[in-house]
Amino acid sequence: MEDFRHFLVALSAAAAAGLVTIVFVLKWVLHFREGLAWDGGPAEFNWHPLLMLSGFIFLNGVAIIVFRLPWTWKCSKLIMKFIHAGLNLAAFTCATISFVAVFDFHNAANIPNMYSLHSWLGLAALILFGLQIVLSVTIYLVPFTPVSWRAAFMPVHVFVGHSLFGSVIAVALMGITEKLIFGLNNPKYKDSPPEAIFVNVMGMLLVAYGVAILWISTRPSWKRPRDEVLNTWNTSAGGEDTTKVGPSLSQMSDETEADGHVDVRRRGNK
Amino acid sequence: MEDFRHFLVALSAAAAAGLVTIVFVLKWVLHFREGLAWDGGPAEFNWHPLLMLSGFIFLNGVAIIVFRLPWTWKCSKLIMKFIHAGLNLAAFTCATISFVAVFDFHNAANIPNMYSLHSWLGLAALILFGLQIVLSVTIYLVPFTPVSWRAAFMPVHVFVGHSLFGSVIAVALMGITEKLIFGLNNPKYKDSPPEAIFVNVMGMLLVAYGVAILWISTRPSWKRPRDEVLNTWNTSAGGEDTTKVGPSLSQMSDETEADGHVDVRRRGNK
Repeated sequence: MEDFRHFLVALSAAAAAGLVTIVFVLKWVLHFREGLAWDGGPAEFNWHPLLMLSGFIFLNGVAIIVFRLPWTWKCSKLIMKFIHAGLNLAAFTCATISFVAVFDFHNAANIPNMYSLHSWLGLAALILFGLQIVLSVTIYLVPFTPVSWRAAFMPVHVFVGHSLFGSVIAVALMGITEKLIFGLNNPKYKDSPPEAIFVNVMGMLLVAYGVAILWISTRPSWKRPRDEVLNTWNTSAGGEDTTKVGPSLSQMSDETEADGHVDVRRRGNK
Repeated sequence: MEDFRHFLVALSAAAAAGLVTIVFVLKWVLHFREGLAWDGGPAEFNWHPLLMLSGFIFLNGVAIIVFRLPWTWKCSKLIMKFIHAGLNLAAFTCATISFVAVFDFHNAANIPNMYSLHSWLGLAALILFGLQIVLSVTIYLVPFTPVSWRAAFMPVHVFVGHSLFGSVIAVALMGITEKLIFGLNNPKYKDSPPEAIFVNVMGMLLVAYGVAILWISTRPSWKRPRDEVLNTWNTSAGGEDTTKVGPSLSQMSDETEADGHVDVRRRGNK
């Protein structure tokens, strides 16, 4: 129960930081900046931060922790895998549209593309994110992939997923820095106008969201339990609603340490 | 043996990326920029990137993985704790001097302090890093701290350590972006002069260093084994040199999962 309360606190912190970040980026582009349009101008550029923060980063964060939400443990692992993949595909789509917006804006304004460290790291992250999706779908959703490959790839899948999530937040912070320097004139960024303070706070919230998501996704005792453990609870409780998992979270910590591997093997044997 | 080769590859990658980053930042400040001095001018500012990359980030990275170097497993855990703490204290000292350098430079040039997201996140990271050191020394190096506190704090200690390491790299990337925008004129950053390309490559190397360190420090099978396991090897091998640990790395992966906690308890009972 104590552990479940801790989970709820961490989840609430992540949800609050993530959702408030989305409100902030909307207010930034709609109130402080030029709004949204698809005309090659600054209003088209504004899709870039909006889709990156509310699409790529927020959805990727949700995808990372979706297996850990106890309310989803009633669903089969396969359905959860599709939800995880779908959220990441939506995140990738947002990121791709967001790239098109910034290229359009640069081309219309005769600003060179791909000169900054922000753009180098951002493109590298997008390509690796796409590769991660293709590889992971091939390994975890194509039925004839050898079981041994699924188990061997899981630590890489998790590490690359976490690293890309953290890296994309870092890239976003660099992009925010660029935009505040280039976009603020009279007063400049260094004069700390209200927009500068507002967007700095948004950057802090984004970091808080990232830290909360990574905290939730790296606690071993919050892993989705293996299906046979879930079935045992249902049987012993006469099919009791598995959303009532508070007291059970700490009981299963040891058993679920290798959840990813074990579950993958069992799914492969079906 | 296979696992040990993988460890050596990861360690070599981290060492190469880290050391080449240091060479790059030295070439940046000495060749492309104004060199090093302590005169309130741009050459004093240059201590900021140099000490952050070669001091704070590089030393913090070494501190994070120092328990995992098999050649150190002959040393007592207490000595390794002092080395870990010492490296982090040296990193903190470099960061503090680096802060003084940039404040001096700003004050001499009438540039406001603490207006940017880079500075907000950087100061927050430095304060949290200092707090982490104070708390960790109190908990793990003061003999009368309750054993239960040591075990309970270990997951937080590790997570905060990894998060701060990643965050400081993100803050450095933002700082590099700022410096390239403000420091390059005629040609500007967007015109991709040689310095821009060179420093962008340095930023990519810094990310590679961070990823390699986090990969090494999050593989469960590379944890320093518990002291009784190490003693067993010595006894069964007739006091054989424990640097020959290649084949043993994979044998002990399961036993060492809770190493941090268990070892702390035993040390507390001495």
